[in-house]
Amino acid sequence: MEQRRLRIGVAGLGRAFSLMLPTFLNDPRVELVAACDPRPEARRQFEKDFDAPTYGDVPDLAADANVEVIYVASPHQFHASHTEVAAAHGKHVLVEKPIALSVEECDRMISACRDASVTLIVGHCHSFDTPYLETRKLIESGAFGSVRMIHALNFTDYLYRPRRPEELSTAEGGGAVFSQAAHQVDIVRLLAGQRATRIRATVGSWDPSRPTEGAYSAILWFEAGAFASLSYNGYGHFDSDEWTGWIGEMGNPKCPDTYGSARRRLATLVSRDEEASLKAAGTYGGASYQPPTNQGGQPRQHQHFGPLIVSCEKGDLRPLPDSVVIYGDQHIEKRNIDAPIVPRAEVIDELYAAVVEHITPIHDGEWAKDTLKICVAMLESSRQGRDIELAACEYCGDLIALSKHSGSKR
Amino acid sequence: MEQRRLRIGVAGLGRAFSLMLPTFLNDPRVELVAACDPRPEARRQFEKDFDAPTYGDVPDLAADANVEVIYVASPHQFHASHTEVAAAHGKHVLVEKPIALSVEECDRMISACRDASVTLIVGHCHSFDTPYLETRKLIESGAFGSVRMIHALNFTDYLYRPRRPEELSTAEGGGAVFSQAAHQVDIVRLLAGQRATRIRATVGSWDPSRPTEGAYSAILWFEAGAFASLSYNGYGHFDSDEWTGWIGEMGNPKCPDTYGSARRRLATLVSRDEEASLKAAGTYGGASYQPPTNQGGQPRQHQHFGPLIVSCEKGDLRPLPDSVVIYGDQHIEKRNIDAPIVPRAEVIDELYAAVVEHITPIHDGEWAKDTLKICVAMLESSRQGRDIELAACEYCGDLIALSKHSGSKR
Repeated sequence: MEQRRLRIGVAGLGRAFSLMLPTFLNDPRVELVAACDPRPEARRQFEKDFDAPTYGDVPDLAADANVEVIYVASPHQFHASHTEVAAAHGKHVLVEKPIALSVEECDRMISACRDASVTLIVGHCHSFDTPYLETRKLIESGAFGSVRMIHALNFTDYLYRPRRPEELSTAEGGGAVFSQAAHQVDIVRLLAGQRATRIRATVGSWDPSRPTEGAYSAILWFEAGAFASLSYNGYGHFDSDEWTGWIGEMGNPKCPDTYGSARRRLATLVSRDEEASLKAAGTYGGASYQPPTNQGGQPRQHQHFGPLIVSCEKGDLRPLPDSVVIYGDQHIEKRNIDAPIVPRAEVIDELYAAVVEHITPIHDGEWAKDTLKICVAMLESSRQGRDIELAACEYCGDLIALSKHSGSKR
Repeated sequence: MEQRRLRIGVAGLGRAFSLMLPTFLNDPRVELVAACDPRPEARRQFEKDFDAPTYGDVPDLAADANVEVIYVASPHQFHASHTEVAAAHGKHVLVEKPIALSVEECDRMISACRDASVTLIVGHCHSFDTPYLETRKLIESGAFGSVRMIHALNFTDYLYRPRRPEELSTAEGGGAVFSQAAHQVDIVRLLAGQRATRIRATVGSWDPSRPTEGAYSAILWFEAGAFASLSYNGYGHFDSDEWTGWIGEMGNPKCPDTYGSARRRLATLVSRDEEASLKAAGTYGGASYQPPTNQGGQPRQHQHFGPLIVSCEKGDLRPLPDSVVIYGDQHIEKRNIDAPIVPRAEVIDELYAAVVEHITPIHDGEWAKDTLKICVAMLESSRQGRDIELAACEYCGDLIALSKHSGSKR
């Protein structure tokens, strides 16, 4: 029997799409049947690669009867309206993280999909990565008792990768909290398996040429008593992939000798426009676009988001790109995980199960909204210099309003 | 010209003394000339090893005219009174950390030493370790701009080493905050080089058989805008020495194959009394006491207190047991540090400079008092579930009173 293939239409052929393309190309459960993008060169490339129609706008894509699922990979500020258009046409939605820029937008997206009886899944996010899901299964086995403490950190060159101007503006959804804590918080929530109740965070912004937060530290508390320490530093100095066996975020073997390459490349650019152009040129259909390869035949490992230790009552669990290490009361055990055949296949696992088998996904709209609320509360905690209780967070309604607050900053 | 040797009398021949003994034996700037301890077997061992007088009580030791400096290594609750006795007899004082159990005790000790015009130095503490002092010098050079963020973590088997009962009671000065944060906070303060202004902390206590906190996470803020994330877990599972090249806290090469040994050894004991006896037997003069060796000839590295990254504006600095690694904007540079000839010689550096050359020490009573205040505020922050401002901390007066507070616990 031939595999049923979900017919996907892509809204936005930018960076997020480039990162998901290997998945769409290699997973037999999906096929790309249409796309839209404002850039003609991206549309031409898609038509050539997939022999499929393209459109200049999302409503036209959504009207294509051959499309079952719309992958919303447009800039963050359009996620909500594009999801609503898709749902109105009865299409299932896979929307990139962050789900949206305000909780109000999340609510609109959730309602639109519920009313249309279509699936809403938010991803890729690193909490889909198999080592975290396997760690969660070990926790759920009960063999290690309750989760009591999680320590998560990540030191990267995030802030010095090519950026569009809005990615360097927190008020427009840029910066380390919306872009990077979105992953870290999601992973920590998945592993804690408890409702988050309270957060204290502080953000760091110390390069005036990149005027958004590039670092943070936070403590997140959970209902059943666990707490998590989350730290992130994207200023391109120490690289914590050293503590993950030099496997990079995308599961790629990494050469420590490339130290400083992001900053050096950026130093060759004279303007923000040039930087945005560089970013555009490297994305799908752009002048310097490189189609996905299999990394010269080197076996890939799973993707990850930095060193992380889950401390349970009877042992620590450490997800790694090729295993979960169990530090028990008596012994260490390394549980190997098969290398991924298709990167990010976990996203298709959840999408396929939801659409075809009607299994409720983990990463639905409500899940993603709760992560966004925590990210908004992190910024607010840093601004006000105090804990934010998540149940009663009155700052989650409108992200843009945050930039107008005048509370003390720390 | 022969080296002037400081004539040290030891108050307390327990565990702390055992750890300082290699220093006293090998540093030509000091000699041990007397001691006191309530245990006759420890006194006999000292008399035999050093051909020097011993006493049953501190006032008798302090009255010994041959003693210049008293090393106060008695249990924490006696630090204040023993320091006062020493000062009253005009002796300089080297007191083990933590300096005392309350800020009021610190004030008494500082006053007593000031009034008697004698030196008061608190240590050993890991902030004496050369790699941290070298990192501080690099920061002070100004080459890397301001300190903006510090990330410090340590995962050990602290809670499962043999303990006296009071070491497992926070109200009596035991637990991970007084015993371990005392090191981590001290190091972070040294590196930040700014006054700490505020702390938010949460402690974890999840083994009812060891009823004190064995873990914590905290965020510490500084006057000039830096923040530090501090995490500690002493529950004997993941061992973060993996991220320090398998060099242990004492600068010793460590074999990962000994995993779980602390917990296994403890499991063979039937009672708290037996545990205390085991601890006593292994200390100076005890039945299973092992005199210091040079680790079978293997070269030692510097002592340390877990992985730590200092993020400055223009680079990250990473103190390691054999070097400081500089992660600059363009390059990585490993600045090697000579291996120590005498372990903890840095303590004698400061003591000798203060007593003989009248150079103000870093680790004086005021310095140690401020670290103690932060530790007390950590417990209070965890208990109350909010930030504690350090300038206005009204909880620092009396540690014992903490156990009577009834605020919310998290």
